Amino acid sequence: MIFHSDAGSLEHGGDLAAARRLFPHAPQPFIDLSTGINPYPYPLPSLAANVFTRLPDSAAQIRLREIAARTYGAPSATHVVCAPGTQILLPLLAALVPPGRAGVLGPTYSEHARAAALAGHAVIDVRDIDELRTVDLAVVVNPNNPDGRIITKERLLALSHDLSAGGGVLAVDEAFMEVGPRGGSLAREIHRGNIIVLRSFGKFFGLPGLRLGFALAAPDLAAKLNATLGPWAVSGPAIAVAEQALADHAWIEATRIRLASAAGKLDRLLAEARVEVLGGTALFRLVRTHRAHEIFQHLGTAGIIVRAFRERPLLLGRILPTVGSSLRKR
Amino acid sequence: MIFHSDAGSLEHGGDLAAARRLFPHAPQPFIDLSTGINPYPYPLPSLAANVFTRLPDSAAQIRLREIAARTYGAPSATHVVCAPGTQILLPLLAALVPPGRAGVLGPTYSEHARAAALAGHAVIDVRDIDELRTVDLAVVVNPNNPDGRIITKERLLALSHDLSAGGGVLAVDEAFMEVGPRGGSLAREIHRGNIIVLRSFGKFFGLPGLRLGFALAAPDLAAKLNATLGPWAVSGPAIAVAEQALADHAWIEATRIRLASAAGKLDRLLAEARVEVLGGTALFRLVRTHRAHEIFQHLGTAGIIVRAFRERPLLLGRILPTVGSSLRKR
Repeated sequence: MIFHSDAGSLEHGGDLAAARRLFPHAPQPFIDLSTGINPYPYPLPSLAANVFTRLPDSAAQIRLREIAARTYGAPSATHVVCAPGTQILLPLLAALVPPGRAGVLGPTYSEHARAAALAGHAVIDVRDIDELRTVDLAVVVNPNNPDGRIITKERLLALSHDLSAGGGVLAVDEAFMEVGPRGGSLAREIHRGNIIVLRSFGKFFGLPGLRLGFALAAPDLAAKLNATLGPWAVSGPAIAVAEQALADHAWIEATRIRLASAAGKLDRLLAEARVEVLGGTALFRLVRTHRAHEIFQHLGTAGIIVRAFRERPLLLGRILPTVGSSLRKR
Repeated sequence: MIFHSDAGSLEHGGDLAAARRLFPHAPQPFIDLSTGINPYPYPLPSLAANVFTRLPDSAAQIRLREIAARTYGAPSATHVVCAPGTQILLPLLAALVPPGRAGVLGPTYSEHARAAALAGHAVIDVRDIDELRTVDLAVVVNPNNPDGRIITKERLLALSHDLSAGGGVLAVDEAFMEVGPRGGSLAREIHRGNIIVLRSFGKFFGLPGLRLGFALAAPDLAAKLNATLGPWAVSGPAIAVAEQALADHAWIEATRIRLASAAGKLDRLLAEARVEVLGGTALFRLVRTHRAHEIFQHLGTAGIIVRAFRERPLLLGRILPTVGSSLRKR
């Protein structure tokens, strides 16, 4: 794990229960800027009662896989695994590879290292992607969380090629690829056989409470994951909403633009405040300041939740135009 | 797997997509009597938008564990695992035990044997509970699906005692215990350390689309399952509905009575039709008839879905008063 949390910080973003413990006297509800979740959620369609009262129909699940394949660029529905969130896929994915050496390109989201260790791997945290060439399981978050680092498709394909010599597998977590570079996804390359792409529904569509995530992989790997997840892995409400949202290309496009514009606005405010932006995506920014802990405390006391990391003087704030304004006004 | 499905039957109950393929000319919507799901669902509360737009809060999850512990009779919230359905817990539970011999008291729900095999166990299907005394993982569904067979708590505790000599674990799937004998649950005995109890939310509360299930186990086993499931295993809507439903003891009691009365009504109709009832619970009945396939076809053509099993002349029908009436009228 890379970014261990401070005793006085948050282990994961979005944990308002922890925030309430840390800042019991803050005005509530909190303004939560501690996650990379889109603050402009996809408008919830009205849900028929039978999405709750019936087991999810196999036909609806197949339809969802087809739509996900089209939207994410996977070759076919047989390359798609639907899960109740990508989180639950991490240990299952790591267990597809017999226990060996797992390498995670860090610093990044800490759950990858935890999941690989759970699956019995010896986990190394590397800074250079070339160090991943000989591992059994290589994990790259692209764009990266929290710094937004982007690895080109060419480098990832070269890595997948090198890994294949030793039977290694490359997992690319594209949780933030909707706001990443166009054409940056590896989804169209999963036919190579040793590439697994993770896509998160909740972050970009702003509906993480639904719990929905996808793995895209060659049909044999996808079938193994589906076998473990079993016949009704995804809830009726998640299927009903995602069927509509994933096919709504107009909303997706408008939201990319809207988030990019909000990120630009935040960058201007941060520049005015002379805060150095190290990176990010249109869903979050990573900034460097030696006053990270102080700012974390100051904002928290005012009811605004961001994340601070122990090992470096960093502060991670979710994009939200009002944040900038709040920062300026206070 | 015990009850292999006919080519012309259903692998699982509730699969209307398969039913549509089998009976393309049947009047729709189907009357689905192929599952053990309560046809009188818990009334859905209105759901706040933030159950969808936020990651499930850790405090809400702890609250749900506390309520589940009280309602199911587990010693404390640390003994409770919340999952997106019990289905997904089956391979994770089987993987808690190092690969060895798993024994399933059959005939029963086929997914247990499949999950144990996935976790690397050699699976034996036994008819006598005493044959489970020396396995590494023993699985008992209680009350059993599909015949309603009930194993007393005393016999299960004796089995757990015998298993503990060899480090074996007893998993008891109590998916239908809400309509089982009072005091029949093993939840209060999980402190013994080698007992895992599974409880299903969706079946009794009639909301399987939500995907919610529980494992009750000693804190060390519960912690391992929770580690694999990760921090946001259960959806916001599932938490919100279950917090209310599991604490609604008046509804639970009234529903037990209502289902028992409906089951009695169905039994009278089946007796009039001279169909032999082999067993069941208040949520389903198992009947024996040499005309099982014919009846399955006849009902299916009329838009009524039940289940038929290949290896024996059995027909499984969900309790619903209108079924009986339909049967009589046609």
